Amino acid sequence: MKIAFIGLGNMGGPMARNLLKAGHALTVFDVVERNVEALTALGAAGAGSAKLAAAAGELVITMLPSSPHVKSVYLGDDGVLAGVRRGVTLVDSSTIDPHSAREVAAAAAAHGNPMADAPVSGGTGGAEAGTLTFMVGADPALFDTIKPTLAHMGKNIVHCGGAGTGQVAKICNNMLLGISMVGVAEAMNLGAALGIDPKVLAGIINTSSGRCWSSDTYNPYPGVMENVPAARGYTGGFGTDLMLKDLGLATDAAKQAKQPVALGAMAQQLYQLWSSQGGGAQDFSAIIKLLHKPAANQRNRP
Amino acid sequence: MKIAFIGLGNMGGPMARNLLKAGHALTVFDVVERNVEALTALGAAGAGSAKLAAAAGELVITMLPSSPHVKSVYLGDDGVLAGVRRGVTLVDSSTIDPHSAREVAAAAAAHGNPMADAPVSGGTGGAEAGTLTFMVGADPALFDTIKPTLAHMGKNIVHCGGAGTGQVAKICNNMLLGISMVGVAEAMNLGAALGIDPKVLAGIINTSSGRCWSSDTYNPYPGVMENVPAARGYTGGFGTDLMLKDLGLATDAAKQAKQPVALGAMAQQLYQLWSSQGGGAQDFSAIIKLLHKPAANQRNRP
Amino acid sequence: MKIAFIGLGNMGGPMARNLLKAGHALTVFDVVERNVEALTALGAAGAGSAKLAAAAGELVITMLPSSPHVKSVYLGDDGVLAGVRRGVTLVDSSTIDPHSAREVAAAAAAHGNPMADAPVSGGTGGAEAGTLTFMVGADPALFDTIKPTLAHMGKNIVHCGGAGTGQVAKICNNMLLGISMVGVAEAMNLGAALGIDPKVLAGIINTSSGRCWSSDTYNPYPGVMENVPAARGYTGGFGTDLMLKDLGLATDAAKQAKQPVALGAMAQQLYQLWSSQGGGAQDFSAIIKLLHKPAANQRNRP
Amino acid sequence: MKIAFIGLGNMGGPMARNLLKAGHALTVFDVVERNVEALTALGAAGAGSAKLAAAAGELVITMLPSSPHVKSVYLGDDGVLAGVRRGVTLVDSSTIDPHSAREVAAAAAAHGNPMADAPVSGGTGGAEAGTLTFMVGADPALFDTIKPTLAHMGKNIVHCGGAGTGQVAKICNNMLLGISMVGVAEAMNLGAALGIDPKVLAGIINTSSGRCWSSDTYNPYPGVMENVPAARGYTGGFGTDLMLKDLGLATDAAKQAKQPVALGAMAQQLYQLWSSQGGGAQDFSAIIKLLHKPAANQRNRP
Repeated sequence: MKIAFIGLGNMGGPMARNLLKAGHALTVFDVVERNVEALTALGAAGAGSAKLAAAAGELVITMLPSSPHVKSVYLGDDGVLAGVRRGVTLVDSSTIDPHSAREVAAAAAAHGNPMADAPVSGGTGGAEAGTLTFMVGADPALFDTIKPTLAHMGKNIVHCGGAGTGQVAKICNNMLLGISMVGVAEAMNLGAALGIDPKVLAGIINTSSGRCWSSDTYNPYPGVMENVPAARGYTGGFGTDLMLKDLGLATDAAKQAKQPVALGAMAQQLYQLWSSQGGGAQDFSAIIKLLHKPAANQRNRP
Repeated sequence: MKIAFIGLGNMGGPMARNLLKAGHALTVFDVVERNVEALTALGAAGAGSAKLAAAAGELVITMLPSSPHVKSVYLGDDGVLAGVRRGVTLVDSSTIDPHSAREVAAAAAAHGNPMADAPVSGGTGGAEAGTLTFMVGADPALFDTIKPTLAHMGKNIVHCGGAGTGQVAKICNNMLLGISMVGVAEAMNLGAALGIDPKVLAGIINTSSGRCWSSDTYNPYPGVMENVPAARGYTGGFGTDLMLKDLGLATDAAKQAKQPVALGAMAQQLYQLWSSQGGGAQDFSAIIKLLHKPAANQRNRP
Repeated sequence: MKIAFIGLGNMGGPMARNLLKAGHALTVFDVVERNVEALTALGAAGAGSAKLAAAAGELVITMLPSSPHVKSVYLGDDGVLAGVRRGVTLVDSSTIDPHSAREVAAAAAAHGNPMADAPVSGGTGGAEAGTLTFMVGADPALFDTIKPTLAHMGKNIVHCGGAGTGQVAKICNNMLLGISMVGVAEAMNLGAALGIDPKVLAGIINTSSGRCWSSDTYNPYPGVMENVPAARGYTGGFGTDLMLKDLGLATDAAKQAKQPVALGAMAQQLYQLWSSQGGGAQDFSAIIKLLHKPAANQRNRP
Repeated sequence: MKIAFIGLGNMGGPMARNLLKAGHALTVFDVVERNVEALTALGAAGAGSAKLAAAAGELVITMLPSSPHVKSVYLGDDGVLAGVRRGVTLVDSSTIDPHSAREVAAAAAAHGNPMADAPVSGGTGGAEAGTLTFMVGADPALFDTIKPTLAHMGKNIVHCGGAGTGQVAKICNNMLLGISMVGVAEAMNLGAALGIDPKVLAGIINTSSGRCWSSDTYNPYPGVMENVPAARGYTGGFGTDLMLKDLGLATDAAKQAKQPVALGAMAQQLYQLWSSQGGGAQDFSAIIKLLHKPAANQRNRP
């Protein structure tokens, strides 16, 4: 299929490469020329704008950093809607607020283009390995249409409901993840401070009612698990500042919806505190270092 | 074995019955005479005080409401240590603060009695069915000694480390549980407010990084799961005021240990708020009702 | 002076009337026709759009509900900049985020119009009595120019610094106010629950280090002061939902600035909770009712 | 008057000296012999125990670090009640939880000794200058009896109500103070991050509804005021760990009273975080350093 792919950064680049590998013909655009060249070197055609790229596609996929970028890339003078043919399907894989996602989808529909929001989880590793999870907001028929193409970039393609629900699912899940990680950090630190072996404590939690992904798959306490960021100085993984972005989207959407999210808001402040102390680029599980007790701090924790 | 069992309330009563069923000879005591009579009717011997009950046991088990009760039952003039023979093992299954647990264990050791803390999870249902989880703080040899007896009352008998670590494991797990439940409540409510189907959202979370026991086994959103308190008006289960008690133990222990527990403390305040609005006797997952958005409040509130 | 006044709601209406009383010639616009008629009945000229009103002014003043309104009224096709003559001074008295205020001021400057942000405090009472406080962001010469006109609507005209700093001052003050009020509510409730007479407690706080406006001028505990919302069922005053709006502006600006505001965010969540339980239209000091202890809840809640 | 003074630390020492200066005859005791010697060098008589000191007094005053000390000094075998004559008045100036204060007062009353709780504010500076504030819980006649003596050590002697209310007043005021200080720190930091001059912002707040002691008398932002801890590197003043102690008393009393104190609990966690990062010995206004935004952190942090 002829696919226009717009936004070729850390996530979009490897996603586009996987589509090329799967045999699709890509026309690509990015504001950073080097990112375009990396794809044309692999056989993609380059375009001078989102508009021109979109004009060449039977399907348009975008992967952009934030809501203002999405609005500008879709609705601007040189944007997707200005160039795309009517009837062509649009898929935005950016993580943005559900309200903006629905606004752009409505503009696309008015223009004659069905549009899906399809944010991902799995990080740059998943983007490269083609094992991303896609959370898709689209009507059922549209979902069926795009699922095979998304499957060239991801392993789980989940239908969440109508337009915007892909974004809703992502920010709700990630808000809960951000809360759980702080909860695990507090529980593990408290246990260690009170004299239980952290590995034993994790084992008990993981078979009890405190069990969660942050504890049994991604434990933040050093020495409890292998092959997690805590085992390699909190490098790799999902950065604190990315978690902050998602918590910002969640609390902002909650504000619009007049929905209290007390722990979500407090988790956001704690990650902000940690980021302001220099932890923004580390994996978000490093929040455990913000919450160390005095003795541990004095003993020079990494 | 001749066992002295002290504390025959909602938990201790059925636990003692299971020991009787397993063929043990029990001497029992409780400040509420009716509780004693319920056991003597089943073949236990009654005693007039903790001291007298303890004097008759080759093993002493206690199940009491709080730390002051434990101190008084073990250390008081009519208490266990005043009556028990040297060398007899003591097991306290109350949920209390680790500091008090260690204090009493040290007094017992000085008196020549090895002592284990063995708080349970599983609630009154688990106590009756004999399927409790015991979290045991004891040295390894002592653990091996008492494990077969505890196995008549529970399914999982977990060794947590030395004296006090049973309590540490329990309060750390339950603090995390209390946080996770609020997190799930906020995420589910936010998703519903933003237009995703709650069942779909729960399904996505349960296979993603937000996955936790509060979401996949005990989801608080009505209609998402069957056979959970949310499916029966938040009756049964683990009461809000019991969760409040455990969060109080956790934040208090954290204060002693100079360990920050920001979300633990905030969760405690939210359950307190919910309890103060009349929710104390409902299952703790009813915290989701405190956090409803306006429309839901207007529709569903009494 | 010929003044264009745009936005004639609960605040803008009485402000415009005070300018008329002071002898200014007004051309007014509002999207609600009735609001325009109320002013033309008093001698103002009506205009069919912000553009047309602005064209008639030697000074333009706006009073609008939120940032999107301000952007649209200034930058839209029928907006102020499309109609106003170069060199005419613009004053926006809306409460909006500092970032948007600076954006609009920059657009005005590029168009040849000096612009000041001048949000107010004092509520509808102050607007009617002409006793508002204006917090003005403008360069010093511009401040001197507009001060005499603002003085016809307010008592304190405070210079806060360059463009946007009026908004900054307002949201910082109001965030602190929102926090202090919750703090006073918690302290007064706690004291009452522990058996001290609330009036005595307030007297002690008001001469000690806990002293603050929320305690000594606007105490939320019923019976402590006269002539405050707490003395009249929390009617009048500054509504909970208005406090929520300002806390939303503050935490959002903090997010942009990467500045932790832990108590500000938590206060926002508590007012949201209170609003979701039906308290949005009551004075913000009614937050004390959210935080009542159980007995008080049982006795006093409707 | 013959006064027994027990507890001669940083606060008790200078308080006892002021009583000596006022012409009272003192018999003193402290577990630290050096503290006793410092007073006997000035003319006090030393005693070998609290019991012996109390036996010599027509009035007993105690100044101790915490509730367990107070219980042991009053109720222990070598304690005040074991030595004091019936009818002698007892005054405890320690800051402890109201529940314990009432417990000890009841024991004293049962023994025939009227007792007042009279915690102070004003710090070591106030203790030395004799300018402390005493918050007194006592019946009115008892208050009148002890007021003249307290006036030799303090400037404001405030009657708060019956037994325990002195403690209640102190912990409620200090909880509010702890909250307000964090609020001011957040508001000042946010303003500075958004580009307003901190001195101008403080001036606006101090004449507006955000006004509070933490802003107008003890501003935490460096450069805003002279003669405050912020002007001298956060030395002197009221230490973070002392604020932590008082917040611990407040949240604990709130737990007993089933009273939500959401911001009080969150402030406690923030001071704990700051203490765990090494700030415990600095003035509590240094909490502003915990909450710095990234740039400020990079520039200013040691």
